Amino acid sequence: MHKVGIIGLGHVGATLAYSLVTEGLVDELVLIDKDEQLAVSQEYDLLDAQVFLPTKTAITIQDYHALKNASILVFCAGQISALGDDGDRFKELEITREIVEETVPKIKESGFDGIILSITNPCDVIVSYLQKLTGFAPSKVIGTGTMLDTARMKQAVGKKLSIDSGNIGGYVYGEHGDSQFVAWSTVTVGDQPILAWNQELDLAQLDEDVRDGGWKSFAGKGFTSYGIASCAIKMIRMILKDTKVIVSASVYDESSSVYYGRPAIIGKNGVESLIDYPLNELEQSQLMRSLEIIDTGLKKLL
Amino acid sequence: MHKVGIIGLGHVGATLAYSLVTEGLVDELVLIDKDEQLAVSQEYDLLDAQVFLPTKTAITIQDYHALKNASILVFCAGQISALGDDGDRFKELEITREIVEETVPKIKESGFDGIILSITNPCDVIVSYLQKLTGFAPSKVIGTGTMLDTARMKQAVGKKLSIDSGNIGGYVYGEHGDSQFVAWSTVTVGDQPILAWNQELDLAQLDEDVRDGGWKSFAGKGFTSYGIASCAIKMIRMILKDTKVIVSASVYDESSSVYYGRPAIIGKNGVESLIDYPLNELEQSQLMRSLEIIDTGLKKLL
Amino acid sequence: MHKVGIIGLGHVGATLAYSLVTEGLVDELVLIDKDEQLAVSQEYDLLDAQVFLPTKTAITIQDYHALKNASILVFCAGQISALGDDGDRFKELEITREIVEETVPKIKESGFDGIILSITNPCDVIVSYLQKLTGFAPSKVIGTGTMLDTARMKQAVGKKLSIDSGNIGGYVYGEHGDSQFVAWSTVTVGDQPILAWNQELDLAQLDEDVRDGGWKSFAGKGFTSYGIASCAIKMIRMILKDTKVIVSASVYDESSSVYYGRPAIIGKNGVESLIDYPLNELEQSQLMRSLEIIDTGLKKLL
Amino acid sequence: MHKVGIIGLGHVGATLAYSLVTEGLVDELVLIDKDEQLAVSQEYDLLDAQVFLPTKTAITIQDYHALKNASILVFCAGQISALGDDGDRFKELEITREIVEETVPKIKESGFDGIILSITNPCDVIVSYLQKLTGFAPSKVIGTGTMLDTARMKQAVGKKLSIDSGNIGGYVYGEHGDSQFVAWSTVTVGDQPILAWNQELDLAQLDEDVRDGGWKSFAGKGFTSYGIASCAIKMIRMILKDTKVIVSASVYDESSSVYYGRPAIIGKNGVESLIDYPLNELEQSQLMRSLEIIDTGLKKLL
Repeated sequence: MHKVGIIGLGHVGATLAYSLVTEGLVDELVLIDKDEQLAVSQEYDLLDAQVFLPTKTAITIQDYHALKNASILVFCAGQISALGDDGDRFKELEITREIVEETVPKIKESGFDGIILSITNPCDVIVSYLQKLTGFAPSKVIGTGTMLDTARMKQAVGKKLSIDSGNIGGYVYGEHGDSQFVAWSTVTVGDQPILAWNQELDLAQLDEDVRDGGWKSFAGKGFTSYGIASCAIKMIRMILKDTKVIVSASVYDESSSVYYGRPAIIGKNGVESLIDYPLNELEQSQLMRSLEIIDTGLKKLL
Repeated sequence: MHKVGIIGLGHVGATLAYSLVTEGLVDELVLIDKDEQLAVSQEYDLLDAQVFLPTKTAITIQDYHALKNASILVFCAGQISALGDDGDRFKELEITREIVEETVPKIKESGFDGIILSITNPCDVIVSYLQKLTGFAPSKVIGTGTMLDTARMKQAVGKKLSIDSGNIGGYVYGEHGDSQFVAWSTVTVGDQPILAWNQELDLAQLDEDVRDGGWKSFAGKGFTSYGIASCAIKMIRMILKDTKVIVSASVYDESSSVYYGRPAIIGKNGVESLIDYPLNELEQSQLMRSLEIIDTGLKKLL
Repeated sequence: MHKVGIIGLGHVGATLAYSLVTEGLVDELVLIDKDEQLAVSQEYDLLDAQVFLPTKTAITIQDYHALKNASILVFCAGQISALGDDGDRFKELEITREIVEETVPKIKESGFDGIILSITNPCDVIVSYLQKLTGFAPSKVIGTGTMLDTARMKQAVGKKLSIDSGNIGGYVYGEHGDSQFVAWSTVTVGDQPILAWNQELDLAQLDEDVRDGGWKSFAGKGFTSYGIASCAIKMIRMILKDTKVIVSASVYDESSSVYYGRPAIIGKNGVESLIDYPLNELEQSQLMRSLEIIDTGLKKLL
Repeated sequence: MHKVGIIGLGHVGATLAYSLVTEGLVDELVLIDKDEQLAVSQEYDLLDAQVFLPTKTAITIQDYHALKNASILVFCAGQISALGDDGDRFKELEITREIVEETVPKIKESGFDGIILSITNPCDVIVSYLQKLTGFAPSKVIGTGTMLDTARMKQAVGKKLSIDSGNIGGYVYGEHGDSQFVAWSTVTVGDQPILAWNQELDLAQLDEDVRDGGWKSFAGKGFTSYGIASCAIKMIRMILKDTKVIVSASVYDESSSVYYGRPAIIGKNGVESLIDYPLNELEQSQLMRSLEIIDTGLKKLL
């Protein structure tokens, strides 16, 4: 039986729950939020939806004990309103810190020993903090990190070249935040290096398109939900089905002792292995800078 | 090619768009909202989501002309914050009236001549008003009406009897609002009359469970989205695939000249026919009362 | 993790495996056939298919030990060519008997203790024989029985009335074979008794349409596969998702000590309970006759 | 409305029809076979299946006129038993030639002007012959060609490296037959050239694994169906949804005046454009040889 828990039922957590229910990917959902009323509301709304669906998902709310035999726990608690006007994700940090500190003891007490997937921002810092407080093996604590940014890169490049984003390969590295960067040396179009495809592409412009796309997605509603929920479902599927797909996600890199977005193989054990690409000098320095920013954020919590 | 338009990109419209995209049911979506920024945000969030999905849906925003060859137009513009603290849907009426009056000329100008599916509350009044202002044949203008309430009834009865809601038949009639009622004489369990299944069922209690379920779904978040979006998708599928399924929806009944929730067969032409069930005396009087309330609401607009 | 085993990889078993793979309903399939080459061929063909699919299903072949922790084992071994020219399913009996007798000890040795779903014809006799030889609780050994015939009835009635088969309720009872019958007293259209819907329906003619539909499905290719595979998947889903839906299936009825097609609630425990409908006199006598035929078939094996 | 026609209802055509029905990708299927009884049988079996499915697909059989407004026509008529014991696909040629010559006038008479997708072997020769006889623009007549072989390559490489086939890029070129070859210079793993991923890979061995996989898939049952049906559905989806994905398929190359398997972008217009990869010398000579074989086959028909 596939059981998945979700802590935090705001826009992201609820959209994720809804998508899991419509897709019928899991057999049981455990939904938890600090606002009991909100959890009840989401439960009933999801039950109503199921009458129209060919699938069935059992729903349990507000019960940490029910997490005991869950395969995956998605952590998406947070408070988007704490995000500063300039979109700086570290402003969300203080509030989220408290939520993590309150939540972790309950997770540990539940006996849960599956894989934690963390979405809450600042993603790399929070996933790292969750790993430290739970004491779980780093391979079992993963952040969505630059998986969403990588998708935005594929979307922007595909749009620019009028082909499907599925034809675009490559990875966004670093912080799920301003210091992230597209590692253009890894980017392919139709399985060829992007510049072999079209030598006149303006990568700096594309870089801006990627950033801009993320911002446009956020600006009009003050949060994003569909991209990140679809991203999380893909990750959940990769873990439950042990697909061993390479994606860029926020994972722990022993060599730098930092969680950051980088390619890894995901399977039933969480992070199955890291994949090293030969980044060029510029990319390496961008990466160093991004790691420092994440590390600085984390130190504020320790 | 299947093209569907959605006017109003709040919780319901956006959730519906997201569900259509994840399911891949249509080839193109036209998304329109009076808040241009919101439309842009939903578009980009949906494009991000598609990178993770096996399907593809073209998205056009803010372009009424693109509705010309759409099969279905979903109207879900409104302002939920206008809903009074007591949940009275008629308090939303004045604001929604203006939206309808502004929108209809643009719909007509676009050349759209498909089927209009209206969700905005008060559902029966607004769908009726939309039909009058557009001048479309009543069979081509449908409200979701008591389709959602019927689902809630099936959910509540199934839960009570510990069987799947798919085993429950029957219909909720009347206003999608307080004066609605479960026509228990139509309700079946496992294709038998409900009281033949279990003579000791307390129907009055079940009636309260149904109402209560709807309220619980609403209370914690101040709106509902997943049930109604799933309901709308089912209706869209019924029209696009010409399934000819009987559902309770807000349709125009010539004999009373009122739009209200009642069983009808839905297919590619919208309402293919109405289905008359022999309601008992109590149900008939409940229906009369509900029709009066809808009619009173509508008269406020005319 | 959801694991399902299939014994017998002819038309039905292979189509079922393919459907499970395309739908992504289970995590692992164990495929077994007495023809090793055939099993290899199906495995590779299914692996090829998966490259084009968004889901992933692990496939193990020819390994009874892998059944140990499977949830469901589908038994569809048999030899359709043994079916007589007149379509008499009992002519398949002798060959199938041997297959059952060879297979059961291997199933038991594997440690499998899930639910057995039997499709092989004559369905009611074989499922009964499987239950006896395995010694499993009768609630854990189910035959598809008249579930497919019930679907054909719904299809024929829906077609006749130009509405969706989803609006048709009711059950076919008895042998999955010539002595089966539509229990018209249970049949509903739009949740009303069928004759209340249309008093002029010629039920005898409809009865022939149902039989004829089954025959037409079989005649042109000498076997059927899509209807029965879809039927089996629905049953598998009901068990894995614990849906508690009422269906007509070949289940053990203590009161008559016979396996035959009749309504039952299916859930994670297999048969959760039997549902008794008040059959009329004609139907009761039809049922008695059908039970005798099944019982006679079974006695040939004991 | 999406309408797709299928000519030839043997293993491949019927499996394709079944998959389209279960997936609900199209609204109407037109099924045609020279054996009227077989067509009736497939129709009824598919109708039975639909009772268990949440989707609905209208089915028309044996009516060429119904192809008039179809978007895609899949040609998979043929006679697998004509395939020689050594698996030489050109032995099927004579019988298939007659089928093509009988069928094309009926297609033209129907007024069909959509896209033809040809599966029948020898694929490259038959698709070319279909294009010549119909006189359709070459961009509108496509063969599945090496799309399936490319999938087998990805499957074999993924298996070898213990990662998902979705991480493998690259193309098989040439004849869908013995003279095909993996263009290793195009093959990537995780968006890197395969030899950058692992320098010790034995490409010659992998080449044999790919061939062997195809053979294993075929040998045990004397035909293949699931891989090729899934391949065809992906192609249909690419056309209907205008995805503009790059795939290797049998398309017409003006520079050589031959249909053969090579990368192309597929969209609503069929072949949107060809994509040229810089093949190395060995690959170029392999390609020349393969083109000659196809050309020789075609000349037998002209």
